[in-house]
Order: sequence, then structure tokens, then C-alpha cells
Amino acid sequence: MPQIDIVLVEPLYEGNTGFAARVMKNFGFHHMVLVDPPKITIEAIARASHAKDILETAEILTLDEVIARSNLVVATTGGLSKSVSNPIRMPYYSPTELREIIKDVDGRVSILFGRENWGLNNEEIRRCDIVATIPTSPEYPIMNISHAIGVICYELAHLPRGEYKLANRVEMDALYVHFEQFLENINHPIEKRKTTILLAKRVLGRTNLTIREASTIRGVLRRTEWHLKHPEL
Amino acid sequence: MPQIDIVLVEPLYEGNTGFAARVMKNFGFHHMVLVDPPKITIEAIARASHAKDILETAEILTLDEVIARSNLVVATTGGLSKSVSNPIRMPYYSPTELREIIKDVDGRVSILFGRENWGLNNEEIRRCDIVATIPTSPEYPIMNISHAIGVICYELAHLPRGEYKLANRVEMDALYVHFEQFLENINHPIEKRKTTILLAKRVLGRTNLTIREASTIRGVLRRTEWHLKHPEL
Repeated sequence: MPQIDIVLVEPLYEGNTGFAARVMKNFGFHHMVLVDPPKITIEAIARASHAKDILETAEILTLDEVIARSNLVVATTGGLSKSVSNPIRMPYYSPTELREIIKDVDGRVSILFGRENWGLNNEEIRRCDIVATIPTSPEYPIMNISHAIGVICYELAHLPRGEYKLANRVEMDALYVHFEQFLENINHPIEKRKTTILLAKRVLGRTNLTIREASTIRGVLRRTEWHLKHPEL
Repeated sequence: MPQIDIVLVEPLYEGNTGFAARVMKNFGFHHMVLVDPPKITIEAIARASHAKDILETAEILTLDEVIARSNLVVATTGGLSKSVSNPIRMPYYSPTELREIIKDVDGRVSILFGRENWGLNNEEIRRCDIVATIPTSPEYPIMNISHAIGVICYELAHLPRGEYKLANRVEMDALYVHFEQFLENINHPIEKRKTTILLAKRVLGRTNLTIREASTIRGVLRRTEWHLKHPEL
């Protein structure tokens, strides 16, 4: 069973943070992380009701710290790109699909929720492994953040236990860095490089690579590089 | 598809009523019914945000009127009787089960949500056809009413998700064949080759690659092969 952290990135209104704490506890989630939050006063505590312990034990971290310690980082977004040509926000998963994807993760899953007014920005979403979206009505797709957290927590509440060891953050990052170098080695057009790396991250991010799989992929990259350097052999 | 009415029975706080309107509209529900509501003022309208039309068109009815005009009346309750010997609140259905039950109803389904402090009373629940409950943590089972409405509407919404085109079988097979040739090109040890191909298939098989992703991967393979053949460039 993964450790699930609900991460509020720069929440603007403490009332929503209190409400979020309450709905988390309703579904049995206890780990709240706040990135650059507003001051938490009496209003948030009132809204949290019997979940004020969640607020009191919430960690305040930077986004860098959140990403560094997570095995899988999930961006949630309401602002969908409908086009496959935008790999920043595509493909995206429904809450049900998200449950299937993370159920086998043995480690920390951080689920990011953005600011009330404009969500997560592209740079933040780019740094996440996968993207999840709650299917909403096109007529009014923007949910209150505590409602969105409620739906996600509701879906994730009954998770079966995971079984195998997944590649951790360090191993995944090493793989992405290796791939970046590799694209350089094969003179992949510079203007395409950033997109290709992001796309690789999106593909690999949703596979929950095991340690062995990650190391096999790097082995193939290494062997290819060796041959690029020793064409005569 | 049934006509679904979200009925708030004696809601105490107008702010919650506004929040409820918002989350209803997020999931495409427009019919709110209020039984003996508080005065709706600026606070409810602010909380409803872009769903103030839901508040403005909400019907104010008595519980008798609601029941008389409905084909199916659903009580929602957080205060579960754990004993099967209490038929007032048993058996109860999860939101997912509720969706299955009402999907074939041709007529009006009224879903009742009770007061913030003590829900629906036994007499009210007794008058309903079925009982639904959102599975919550025993540690803190009482949800804010707008969060409960959010989860129920989310389950009942069945909104089509956005579409993106996945790579089909032919494209995936072409990718595997390409990868096999590639391993040959880099002299991947013969005894390892079969396992490596299988592993690639397992990894890629679970990613649901989009067409664009599959073609980008093949593009990188092709460029690498070109460099293997033209080491001087």
C-alpha cells in the first residue's frame, strides 16, 4: 500500500485548506503537505471541524522537497488540453484509473492540487510523473479544491496492498538524465529534445517501472552508446 | 436516463447550499430542491460561484411534494446502523451500486441529503425507497454536505472523458519488431535478447501509448540506427 500525501500547492484561502483536511480524514487520509500556504487561523480550523489534527500535523515543504522524496508525483488538473499534441497535460487519467495505477506502488505517492484560481502551471505539471483529471461538465469544469480532493480521496480510499518493489525517484531520475544524454549522443534535433524527454517521462511515469525494468532499459542505452563510440567493432 | 433531483432537507447553512450548487453543476446536474431552507443571501451566491443559476432556479417544496412526484426516492445517510436488524437504514448501497440501480429508471429520482448536524431522521428515511451511504472512515464518518453531494454526483455523472487516440495493435507490433531489430543492431547478447524484448513488451504494453508517443519512440530508434551506420558524421 502506498503512502499517499495530499499536497496543496500555494493554496490561497485557508478556509479551503480546512475543508480539504476534513474530507481527507473522512476517507482515512492523514498526510497533508502545504507548499507556501496562507496563514492558518481560526477559520481553517473551524472548517476542518474534527480534522484539525490533519491541519496541525500538515508538513510545510517546497515543491522541490515534495518531488525529491516521492516515488510517484501526480498532477491534478481541471484545465484539460484536448489535443494529443500537448504532452504536458496528456494523456490524463480519471480518478478510477489513477487508483489502478498507484495501487501497486510501494512507496510515497504525492498528489498535487493547484491554486484555487489557476491550478498548477505548466512548469509544475511538467515535473510530475502522471496527470489526473476528474471528468467534469464542460459547462462548469472548475471544482472547488476541497471537492476535488474529496472525489480523489473517495476513489483512492480502498486500495489493495502492493506487492513488488518499484524503482524509486533516484533511479527514475537517473534514467531520465541518461535518456537526455542519449538524445544528445544521437544528435536528436535540439528543438525537439525537450518534448521528446517530456514524452519519455510521461510514458515511463505511468508504467510503474520495477527496479529491474529500469536497470534493463539503462543497460540497453549503455550498450547502444558503446556501439556508437566503437563503430568498428 | 432518469431525471435526477438533488434534494436538501432543511439545510442549516446557506454557504453549504451554495457550495452544493457549485459541485452539482461541476458534474452536470441542474435540479436542486430545497425543503425548508434558510434564507439565501449573498453568501450562498458567492459560494455557488458560476452556479448561481442552480440556486436561482432551485425549487422550494415540502417533503410530501418531493415524495409524491418521484419515481424513486433515495435517502443518503452517514450514520450507519451496523446491524442488519434495523431495516430503516439497511440494506444500504454504495454510490457505485446506486448508479447501477438508478441507471435504468425512466422518471424522476430524488436523492435526499439531510441536515448538517444530524442528517435525515428515521421517519424521513422510512419514507424513502432505498438508502445510500458513502463509505467513510470510522474515525470521522461525517462529511460536509457539499462534499457528500460531490461524491454522489461524481458517481452518477458518467460524463464522457476527453478522447485521445491510442496506438493500435499494428502500430504496437511494428514497434516491438523494430525494437527486436534494434537489439540485433547493437549486438545485445543473444541469450538475453528474448527476455529483454519481453520486458519491453511488458513495459510498453501497460502504458497505452498514444499514436504520437509510439511514433516518437520509433523516431528515436531510427535516428540511433542511422548514427550506428554513419559513425563518421
